[in-house]
Amino acid sequence: MTMADSTPYGGGPGGPEDPDRAGGPEHTGAADSPGAAGSRERGRLHELAQQLRVDSVRAADAAGSGHPTSSMSAADVMAVLLARHLQYDFARPDHPGNDRFVLSKGHASPLLYAAYKAAGVVTDEELLTFRAHGSRLEGHPTPRRLPWVEVATGSLGQGLGVGVGMALSGKRLDRIPYRVWVLCGDSELAEGAVWEAAEHAAYERLDNLTLIVDVNRLGQRGPTRHEWDLDAYERRLAAFGWHVVQADGHDTEALDRACHEARSTAGRPTAILARTVKGRGVAAAENREGLHGKPLPDADAAVRELGGARRVRVDVQAPPAARTLRATRSGHLELPRYETGTETATRDAFGQALTALGSARGDVVALDGEVGDSTRAEYFAKEHPDRFFECYIAEQQMVAAAVGLATRGWVPYASSFAAFLTRAHDFVRMAAIGGAGINLVGSHAGVAIGQDGPSQMGLEDLAMFRAVHGSTVLYPCDANQTARLVAAMADLDGVRYLRTSRGATPVLYGPDEEFPVGGSKVLRSSGDDRLTVVAAGTTVHEALAAADTLDGVGIPVRVIDLYSVKPVDRNTLREAAESTGCLLTVEDHRQEGGLGDAVLDAFGDGSPVPRLVRLAVTGMPGSASPAEQLRAAGIDAESIAAAVRLLVERVVP
Amino acid sequence: MTMADSTPYGGGPGGPEDPDRAGGPEHTGAADSPGAAGSRERGRLHELAQQLRVDSVRAADAAGSGHPTSSMSAADVMAVLLARHLQYDFARPDHPGNDRFVLSKGHASPLLYAAYKAAGVVTDEELLTFRAHGSRLEGHPTPRRLPWVEVATGSLGQGLGVGVGMALSGKRLDRIPYRVWVLCGDSELAEGAVWEAAEHAAYERLDNLTLIVDVNRLGQRGPTRHEWDLDAYERRLAAFGWHVVQADGHDTEALDRACHEARSTAGRPTAILARTVKGRGVAAAENREGLHGKPLPDADAAVRELGGARRVRVDVQAPPAARTLRATRSGHLELPRYETGTETATRDAFGQALTALGSARGDVVALDGEVGDSTRAEYFAKEHPDRFFECYIAEQQMVAAAVGLATRGWVPYASSFAAFLTRAHDFVRMAAIGGAGINLVGSHAGVAIGQDGPSQMGLEDLAMFRAVHGSTVLYPCDANQTARLVAAMADLDGVRYLRTSRGATPVLYGPDEEFPVGGSKVLRSSGDDRLTVVAAGTTVHEALAAADTLDGVGIPVRVIDLYSVKPVDRNTLREAAESTGCLLTVEDHRQEGGLGDAVLDAFGDGSPVPRLVRLAVTGMPGSASPAEQLRAAGIDAESIAAAVRLLVERVVP
Repeated sequence: MTMADSTPYGGGPGGPEDPDRAGGPEHTGAADSPGAAGSRERGRLHELAQQLRVDSVRAADAAGSGHPTSSMSAADVMAVLLARHLQYDFARPDHPGNDRFVLSKGHASPLLYAAYKAAGVVTDEELLTFRAHGSRLEGHPTPRRLPWVEVATGSLGQGLGVGVGMALSGKRLDRIPYRVWVLCGDSELAEGAVWEAAEHAAYERLDNLTLIVDVNRLGQRGPTRHEWDLDAYERRLAAFGWHVVQADGHDTEALDRACHEARSTAGRPTAILARTVKGRGVAAAENREGLHGKPLPDADAAVRELGGARRVRVDVQAPPAARTLRATRSGHLELPRYETGTETATRDAFGQALTALGSARGDVVALDGEVGDSTRAEYFAKEHPDRFFECYIAEQQMVAAAVGLATRGWVPYASSFAAFLTRAHDFVRMAAIGGAGINLVGSHAGVAIGQDGPSQMGLEDLAMFRAVHGSTVLYPCDANQTARLVAAMADLDGVRYLRTSRGATPVLYGPDEEFPVGGSKVLRSSGDDRLTVVAAGTTVHEALAAADTLDGVGIPVRVIDLYSVKPVDRNTLREAAESTGCLLTVEDHRQEGGLGDAVLDAFGDGSPVPRLVRLAVTGMPGSASPAEQLRAAGIDAESIAAAVRLLVERVVP
Repeated sequence: MTMADSTPYGGGPGGPEDPDRAGGPEHTGAADSPGAAGSRERGRLHELAQQLRVDSVRAADAAGSGHPTSSMSAADVMAVLLARHLQYDFARPDHPGNDRFVLSKGHASPLLYAAYKAAGVVTDEELLTFRAHGSRLEGHPTPRRLPWVEVATGSLGQGLGVGVGMALSGKRLDRIPYRVWVLCGDSELAEGAVWEAAEHAAYERLDNLTLIVDVNRLGQRGPTRHEWDLDAYERRLAAFGWHVVQADGHDTEALDRACHEARSTAGRPTAILARTVKGRGVAAAENREGLHGKPLPDADAAVRELGGARRVRVDVQAPPAARTLRATRSGHLELPRYETGTETATRDAFGQALTALGSARGDVVALDGEVGDSTRAEYFAKEHPDRFFECYIAEQQMVAAAVGLATRGWVPYASSFAAFLTRAHDFVRMAAIGGAGINLVGSHAGVAIGQDGPSQMGLEDLAMFRAVHGSTVLYPCDANQTARLVAAMADLDGVRYLRTSRGATPVLYGPDEEFPVGGSKVLRSSGDDRLTVVAAGTTVHEALAAADTLDGVGIPVRVIDLYSVKPVDRNTLREAAESTGCLLTVEDHRQEGGLGDAVLDAFGDGSPVPRLVRLAVTGMPGSASPAEQLRAAGIDAESIAAAVRLLVERVVP
């Protein structure tokens, strides 16, 4: 591609994107025809970059907050990318051939929005609504409102990992030759997640992925660890298997050459280290500490110094025709069927159901954090190796890649031990902000795992996932229930979490039983129930055994299997509360944020609340057999029966 | 140190540490006198290593679970370390001069316990209680029970970061020349946290830190990403600034040389890459997939193949005399005092109080994740630069270093945005398992931060920290309250969390008011209260304004400031429930796991539960001013007043 091909600048005076002129000199370079010589092109790119700076300054000034200096350092990078390398149809953000652009340094949102304006999809009027209540142009970009944003950023160090997921889709699944461009800051390279992503990208030979680092030397509170030592970054990235190019981040020709080099490098991803100056273009702001995240003190003067407002408009190069190829699958889902009375671990059922789902649907993919033999994701990996991604022990990257794959229309299931998904908490949080549709599966729930001890026990996962916005939290107790829920979660919105158990449990339900999300199952019920035991997963079986014991001594109790922890089945819980007056929740989880709290979601509107007793894991387990663990935690059948007897005899007689 | 000096092996027949002999040949090398020649020493180290293997096999066999093959690969490393390099007084685990040893690959606990047996502090009888209910020898080592374990491991990739904290203490604070030895697996190098730690260690020039990587090629479910490509690891670590030595991990002389090289390398940390064979010593297990985390199929045969049980005993070298020097401080705490009626952000009060605390106490240290200008940790950094640690944007490493510092008796305060502490969730979880005493401070709580948008808002932090075992969760609403709580949390056990706010809030309390942990403040109360509004932090001020409005229309309400979210003030909440019948909780947090759920902790024992209504952040915020955010989330004064009116008129009249 020649420069001429890639810079069909259009635009002109007037039109809704015509900004207020700030009194600076006029520039007309933007109207020049394609095919200009190098120096003319350089001039036009400079004009575009200056416009991006001006608009970044103006947007932050209008908002009274924001990050203009972090935008100004990367303006030349953005100009080169937008005008000469990005292939993107702004009218069709769902075009499968579109390049992907991820602004990992999400606080530089003014630069992104200024680029949107230059591309003609955001008016100057809208640009100046930056950070205002109701504006699409939020402090950090989110996909919920802007069709050209695919992933929420703003928590640093996440963009590259998501970009890896996008690049994996292009390279290994869709086989569409789009490029993924990730622009990140230098500060965020301190995040370990970046190195998980770097490792993953090089290992998968993602030469369709380019990372551009805006090395502006200054973090939020002062100099970064390596300041302008670009060699320090180069050594690290090269050691991780990347091709690395250093460039003056304000030399558009050098940046252009670097981008060309990235595009022509085969077999590995390329990192462009762009040496830049924070606040570039405004002397009072350049390379100055204390100006992070603040509008420039004198925006009008800054705009003048930058040469005033411009009317540069970029006709961004369209992508080549492409279409998404999804392997044809049976379309007919044949979930595994388990016979009641037999025993199967829910993790086994997960692996088997996911494999079946993958046979029925070509859009289902799986990722695992090097524990597929434990989570049983390995069943899927064996049957559908082309759609399985081994992420090794890097849970942040596993979730990031899942988010990236989800942006390309895949339905990812990412699994690890429930305990280790806490490692990816911030990625899950950001996935929810971006509305990413991902399935997460945490195995080895609770003390029931036995001897391995507390480090391997998921005891906080329900609390973590319940608090995630828009999440669904499922916790099956048997194999058929698991299989149904694995299939059901595929079509939900947002973050879906499934909690599985290590040990085998009896199959309670027939294979044709249905388990709507938001539902529950009443397993024991009579008109004489003295109270209701609410359980899920492992404790359902303990509750049933307790109910049998209690029945034998004339204390009938209701038992509810609350497999849908979020959303919770209000009606059934309320009915149980009205009928029996007292709820006893039993969970293999910490007392805070889990099943007990979920039950109370049904009573948070001012209606009468039943008496409530919680049995949960309150101490710190050591090593012991599963049965000993449940006993020690006071959540086994005998403990439940004892608690019920105490309650009906002493507390709620 | 000569070989002779460091290997005064003792031991002999009989005694409680005499293992059952498994029928193998006898070895007497262990009884040889010091001063042996190289080959004799090699023989003795081999004997010791074989004993470690035998005992690992036996322990896992007795337990019926565990990780013998992961122990066997590192047995020679452990033998060399224990017999020739570690300086440790097992009788005085609190000896300030002791070297620190961190088993980052915590699943290799059989090796650690076998080493304890060889050192004479664990009997053979106890060794065989491995993983049994009540045994000190848990599946993964924890400091709660074993005096020689300083940090809980078992979640991979955490040991190096904690080791960095220990090394920082020796190097920058105590200035005691102990060494920190971290033994990790190769799989765990995929964790980004390891690279955060590697960066931190090199940046701080921690030449008192040695990382030994047991490169046994096999992870849990198969080969690692880099298998035996030691050069791949060397390139990465060297690029991060480490001195790297490769060694045959079964050649005790090579390992010994490598350890000497590590000890004599100045100005940077050293990594020893030990090429090992998983399951080493038992042909049927060597380098074999599918044997991770399982006892050997035929333990007796394995013990025989390893040469049978031995009676090698190591007199581990004692450390040189050392004493902890803590700078004398005033001892007199002069907390900042704020005048009621003025306004101060609680984050400002945190920074000021922490600075004062640092002046009074020499054991208080602070860490921050490159946002000290926002969290206000920078106040402490300016006043006490010698006790401040800039961790850059690496929250996992920040918490890991805090845990490491806590093991050395320091009282660390680590701060970042509340939202970004989710990044360190797994480290917090493991800190709780290990009983580490650390203070974490999360700023920028809730939607009240305003324009920056959801990526920067701490909205899940209360749920995350409440579910941490043994945690304390504090959420002050004014500056004097903040100052008192900052001081109080220093002396608590376990993980302590303080949530601070970005914007200035009115000072409600006088500077001499006391705020016991587990308490609350009743700010409005009368005999006619129609219901109780429970608030904390930002919403306390909204609740008070609502109460004033409601009072004006004849609806008196009680207002409780629940600054201690965990533990919660049961008595005051119960009294309010009895008096007013209905609780309305208002929180700048997600509905799940936060203040509303905390209130219900007071009613989880079967006693009557009041009606409950929750106001919380249920939607996804965008950008807006703080006031607009509170309004949009329905947690501002007007929303509270409207909810109360609706409740008293319609629901609980």
